Amino acid sequence: MEIIKIAVDAMGGDHAPAIVIEGVVDYIRENQHDDGYKIMLVGKEKEINRELRKYKNFRLDRLEIIDALEEISMKEHFLTYWRKREKTSIKKAIDLVKNNKAKAMVSAGNTGAVMALAKTVLGSIKNIDRPALAIMLPTLKGTSLLVDVGANTNSKPHNLVQFALMGKVYLENIYSIKNPRIGLMNIGEEEVKGNELTKITHNLLKNLDINFIGNIEGRDVYLGEADLIVTDGFTGNVALKVSEGLADVMLSMLRREIMSNIFSKIGFFFLKRSLKRIKNKLDYAEYGGALLLGVNGIVIIGHGSSNAKAIKNAVYLSYKFISQKVLQKISQEIEKSKISLAELKHV
Amino acid sequence: MEIIKIAVDAMGGDHAPAIVIEGVVDYIRENQHDDGYKIMLVGKEKEINRELRKYKNFRLDRLEIIDALEEISMKEHFLTYWRKREKTSIKKAIDLVKNNKAKAMVSAGNTGAVMALAKTVLGSIKNIDRPALAIMLPTLKGTSLLVDVGANTNSKPHNLVQFALMGKVYLENIYSIKNPRIGLMNIGEEEVKGNELTKITHNLLKNLDINFIGNIEGRDVYLGEADLIVTDGFTGNVALKVSEGLADVMLSMLRREIMSNIFSKIGFFFLKRSLKRIKNKLDYAEYGGALLLGVNGIVIIGHGSSNAKAIKNAVYLSYKFISQKVLQKISQEIEKSKISLAELKHV
Repeated sequence: MEIIKIAVDAMGGDHAPAIVIEGVVDYIRENQHDDGYKIMLVGKEKEINRELRKYKNFRLDRLEIIDALEEISMKEHFLTYWRKREKTSIKKAIDLVKNNKAKAMVSAGNTGAVMALAKTVLGSIKNIDRPALAIMLPTLKGTSLLVDVGANTNSKPHNLVQFALMGKVYLENIYSIKNPRIGLMNIGEEEVKGNELTKITHNLLKNLDINFIGNIEGRDVYLGEADLIVTDGFTGNVALKVSEGLADVMLSMLRREIMSNIFSKIGFFFLKRSLKRIKNKLDYAEYGGALLLGVNGIVIIGHGSSNAKAIKNAVYLSYKFISQKVLQKISQEIEKSKISLAELKHV
Repeated sequence: MEIIKIAVDAMGGDHAPAIVIEGVVDYIRENQHDDGYKIMLVGKEKEINRELRKYKNFRLDRLEIIDALEEISMKEHFLTYWRKREKTSIKKAIDLVKNNKAKAMVSAGNTGAVMALAKTVLGSIKNIDRPALAIMLPTLKGTSLLVDVGANTNSKPHNLVQFALMGKVYLENIYSIKNPRIGLMNIGEEEVKGNELTKITHNLLKNLDINFIGNIEGRDVYLGEADLIVTDGFTGNVALKVSEGLADVMLSMLRREIMSNIFSKIGFFFLKRSLKRIKNKLDYAEYGGALLLGVNGIVIIGHGSSNAKAIKNAVYLSYKFISQKVLQKISQEIEKSKISLAELKHV
């Protein structure tokens, strides 16, 4: 049996390397009897070893450490990290995938840097012009996948069609959703509504052999009307970030109100578990992270504020991604789709 | 003294005409000693009179009824309402503004219909190419104005510049915010980030004599980092609708959790007032409605689910709009702005 190797950027995230190591150790502990994988921790070797010494009773033989002298900080700009990129943990982890030494890489680091480096180093898989960032959103009915949340700033209709097909394969294979309901983010339900991009894309999706349910308005996203919502990276990024911001602000307001008097404090005591459950439902940590779909390798990008659970779940996610051969299936899906991509490109 | 006349679409909204009449009566009762205004209720006369009979002790002399045989339902499509438009309450209310018989119109009806008819009938004010829909959002620090939330599907940089200037005048005159902080909705803080539209717009706004604070990411919207956030109508509409949907879903989850067991029900009893205060803070009813800025007349569009308070506040808002001469000031602001609009149009 081939051993599945997963590279984890030990230096990525607001609480790295401590939280990353904790998440990896948790993963190893939950899979004590599995000899079929190995995790390659990429980062400053000394710091990694110092963190590892905090833990006992886990299989150290499931780990490999790949030294990296540099790291890219969370908000570092392109121009400052690009020069030192070769020595960074992000680039080294991506190189492991490129050179087939790892099958997937996980980072909770600088999203822009991971995307830029992954796109440059790995390139796109066959039949895909532009990779897209996909993220699972919690909804009233369960979850929905939103693609693209920021890998592209200017998209064409044929890009959005590819996003839809990639998302479909992902949901079918990772979440076992058969024939997922696919919606197009738009500002009206009618087919004629929207901007040039959505009007043309609507027409293309309608003619594909997929379960296209039409336009999805912003209001319907969290109702769970679709399993997959396709949008351009600009709109998707704004929608995602606005949601995160609003959820935080609502919880802050609640906290402020609760602390304002004794009665609401009593109320909070009784409601605590309910509020916790809601917070968990909204928690990105459950879903492991965002996926850079379409690059020639598996790249999972965790939230900057990832906790150990998010890291652990990202490792689970990449394991499943590899064992289900999702990348190959994406290529096949687009190949077999009746749309001639050559034609679409000229739309 | 000239009497300020405000046309109110009695048939607009999910709960019309009952709620609309209730809101108008509330306004009249709160202004018992004011002879300086009149409200023109536009709609099916019989229905309006039937509703009015429910109320006593208010000045009926502040009301006028304008009969309209037809109404446009909330989700009615362009093609079905366009033929009957002349007889509808929305069109008649807009005509009153056009013919200078009213200075403003308020409707909680079909937003698309109000926008389309207002743009067609009223046209734009001097120096404005495209009207924009503006809405007040609650934030952690207070409120922020978001422009455009859906009046346009395809915008050019010079449109966004005009949105910024219109919003600025509005905030200065209606909310007394001096030199409001103006941000551009974007998917990164750096100047070079974003799509073609935001990159060029950033450059234009930077060169204007306004308090431009740069790009605003989705996450920062509800933190209240800017007094005014400028965006294209597609992105703005998605951001607004996603927010409404998420807030509803979070409150639904909370309700579901609360009802699930006796302890959380007890907790809710004590927290009730706190939750109510948060709900109020998030409530659009406080802010009266959205404004169609830039048409040649004052047009306020309430939320479809407006309650009586929202209608009342929309009347207050239009009164202030008129008395502060905001429309004229918008024209002047753009006139005096150093940017040559003729040049901007070619960007």
